[in-house]
Amino acid sequence: MFFDWLKNRPFNGLQAMTAAAMIGVMIAGAAQAQDAVTKEEEELAANSVTHQMYLDMKLGKLNIHGDNAVVEALVLQRDIPVSYDYIATLMRTPNAFGDGPACIVCHGSNDPAKSYRGMDLSSCEGILRGSTERPSRQIIVPGEPEKSLLVKMLRNNRMPLGVPFFEPVSSEAISKVKAWINDGAKDDETFQQKVLPLFAEEDAFGSETACIECHKSHRDPPSFNEVNLKSYEGIMKGAWSGTRGKEGKPGIPIVVPFDAEASALVQRLTMNRMPPGIDPGSEPNHPNTLLLMQWIEQGAWCK
Amino acid sequence: MFFDWLKNRPFNGLQAMTAAAMIGVMIAGAAQAQDAVTKEEEELAANSVTHQMYLDMKLGKLNIHGDNAVVEALVLQRDIPVSYDYIATLMRTPNAFGDGPACIVCHGSNDPAKSYRGMDLSSCEGILRGSTERPSRQIIVPGEPEKSLLVKMLRNNRMPLGVPFFEPVSSEAISKVKAWINDGAKDDETFQQKVLPLFAEEDAFGSETACIECHKSHRDPPSFNEVNLKSYEGIMKGAWSGTRGKEGKPGIPIVVPFDAEASALVQRLTMNRMPPGIDPGSEPNHPNTLLLMQWIEQGAWCK
Amino acid sequence: MFFDWLKNRPFNGLQAMTAAAMIGVMIAGAAQAQDAVTKEEEELAANSVTHQMYLDMKLGKLNIHGDNAVVEALVLQRDIPVSYDYIATLMRTPNAFGDGPACIVCHGSNDPAKSYRGMDLSSCEGILRGSTERPSRQIIVPGEPEKSLLVKMLRNNRMPLGVPFFEPVSSEAISKVKAWINDGAKDDETFQQKVLPLFAEEDAFGSETACIECHKSHRDPPSFNEVNLKSYEGIMKGAWSGTRGKEGKPGIPIVVPFDAEASALVQRLTMNRMPPGIDPGSEPNHPNTLLLMQWIEQGAWCK
Repeated sequence: MFFDWLKNRPFNGLQAMTAAAMIGVMIAGAAQAQDAVTKEEEELAANSVTHQMYLDMKLGKLNIHGDNAVVEALVLQRDIPVSYDYIATLMRTPNAFGDGPACIVCHGSNDPAKSYRGMDLSSCEGILRGSTERPSRQIIVPGEPEKSLLVKMLRNNRMPLGVPFFEPVSSEAISKVKAWINDGAKDDETFQQKVLPLFAEEDAFGSETACIECHKSHRDPPSFNEVNLKSYEGIMKGAWSGTRGKEGKPGIPIVVPFDAEASALVQRLTMNRMPPGIDPGSEPNHPNTLLLMQWIEQGAWCK
Repeated sequence: MFFDWLKNRPFNGLQAMTAAAMIGVMIAGAAQAQDAVTKEEEELAANSVTHQMYLDMKLGKLNIHGDNAVVEALVLQRDIPVSYDYIATLMRTPNAFGDGPACIVCHGSNDPAKSYRGMDLSSCEGILRGSTERPSRQIIVPGEPEKSLLVKMLRNNRMPLGVPFFEPVSSEAISKVKAWINDGAKDDETFQQKVLPLFAEEDAFGSETACIECHKSHRDPPSFNEVNLKSYEGIMKGAWSGTRGKEGKPGIPIVVPFDAEASALVQRLTMNRMPPGIDPGSEPNHPNTLLLMQWIEQGAWCK
Repeated sequence: MFFDWLKNRPFNGLQAMTAAAMIGVMIAGAAQAQDAVTKEEEELAANSVTHQMYLDMKLGKLNIHGDNAVVEALVLQRDIPVSYDYIATLMRTPNAFGDGPACIVCHGSNDPAKSYRGMDLSSCEGILRGSTERPSRQIIVPGEPEKSLLVKMLRNNRMPLGVPFFEPVSSEAISKVKAWINDGAKDDETFQQKVLPLFAEEDAFGSETACIECHKSHRDPPSFNEVNLKSYEGIMKGAWSGTRGKEGKPGIPIVVPFDAEASALVQRLTMNRMPPGIDPGSEPNHPNTLLLMQWIEQGAWCK
């Protein structure tokens, strides 16, 4: 889904998405000379990614140059299968997704007494099994990288920006938000007096920044992800950035009534971005994160 | 032992120890609000490192923030098992313990004709077997990271600082020191006239620096490791830094009479820090070195 | 062959070769004191790389100091066996040979529909099999690192410098060069009027630089690789740099009449340096590339 979207975007969209990683991407001002394509060239291209690439080069469809841009063009856009062998390397290598320890340092066993979340990222079976500590959770949704918790953990910063890693995840403020959602997320007096003001309050969630400094309207900029936490209506409209430009589509919900744990609003307040200690400014579209997403998109196969 | 000591130290001690690696460690000025701990929380914490962490977060016991500091707090202090799988990665990855080649490039076989020291670091069995070249040596003392040669080789610079990697290890000066120790390390005329002056002599051991420039008293600063090479008495008192503050304890011996090879004084003059070519200023407490030490502390298990 | 040559060169030649990687190499002005070598020392050295090193240290033969220089001296010059285990690590690690994606990201299967060139670099069998896409090709010539395509791909920049990765490899200009070679590489009217002028023309091959700006005589500097593309005679003399100083030897041919694909002149115009996106200024003698070459020199054994 994510990669379908990626594949259909113009190059300047691709450029915007991974701007930090793709410095140097350029779009040729004029198309290349487009020679006639021979039948032989078409036949060769039918079963060969190499000849598909040659054909596109000849047709002037590939005129990016720069660093990681070629990887986007060679692997992501062409849906080259990503092997578990490579995913295994990423899971056991320090700094694979940005500066930080290797995943398997903290997540190397299904025993919750030995490994955070009882999660074993050192084998393909372990990745598919997910976190075994109750409540157990899948971390991979095969075919759906953006819905996969493993990907979210690598890309999403804990909010508000600047909150320390060890800020309690069950503070009074967070508990109020959770209780409100688990009671049905109603627009009642409790919400208006006890919950809504938290989003405007500095220091409510462990950082000096108030939520609404960055999430105040459905337009980005200035509102990151086009989230509006200034009113009940704004919150329930969700994140517009995920659906922007698709006429008539609602935003992506950030509150799931009666299920605080499944609500992005709570997840973002409680889940520290991985690997621990990573700079919140680190590129969420790290090339290896994109390759992990492609592996999931392709089905997350072990062989 | 090392980690017991680490675990019991206050955070500012921890900070001092790995200062270079832990920039950004901060101690919250005030303790967090310490809510009452419920029985459920205690039960959850009993068999889960995740819930132990939550509990400590709630109790305000974890208020470090910064980069590698979270790893210290998440893995080292909590004694999370380090898997051989991760150690295997470190042994075959360039720059794993600081800039330099992967361990297995030089140490990949038990045949001394093919591999330095006849040491095979590419398998767990090989690591446990140690160097097979005579005199063969264990490089791991399970449970005792600080006594393990593998750890010493990664942390200790060859002395004096600045000595080239290929400076002979059996020079006349080094031979005199070894002979003195192997003869019983007595305070005789030979020692006073032929050995002691070497420690005060520039260029005696291959560097412009004389030993006593950095090792002149039992106080650090100015004396690194609180070693004093200015007199027989000073040398035999050993390194005070290892026992500092423990009333009545002697220093750690640097001379083992009748056994030059086992004497730190000789080892430090002859053993090049690994990996070859590493900058002597490189952090001895590299996060991966600490994780290797934890694996040894935990028993150096292969599975 | 390559390493024989390397092993027999004086250290300042070694220094010149890997200048960027070996900053800090120094030759001691005076030889070390050369003590007499005992019979015991000689016997110990016979079957031990460690004692061979000790002996050479004693004899003052190893007085390099600096960073990667020790690796050259410890591994390359002493022909320490490089294990496939290490090669396997390199093939699956990002940035192993310079900044860029891991080899197995694009080359992980023998199916040309799934992997560029139908090449599987994730197993030793796959490396030995080479590219299976027709025309299939060996990428390793055991014992001959400099003739191995895998090595060439890692070291040689596509020409002219600055040409974008996705510049078509079958442009009109390149096709003319290929046709000329496949017709026998004769010094005829077609060559003089249609082919030779291309090497003097800016933009002929996708970069602003004309070939002859850097390849104009058999002397380097100013002519890289001592290639001269200014005349038929110059081209057919080949690259002098490969044979320089060997009296009476011809240059290494860059044109193989009747075989354009085997001609370095065409290869350099069509083959992008690996990994994709690597800076053309990256050190061609990356330490890991040298270790890969040593593995091939030693026979490219899988165990």
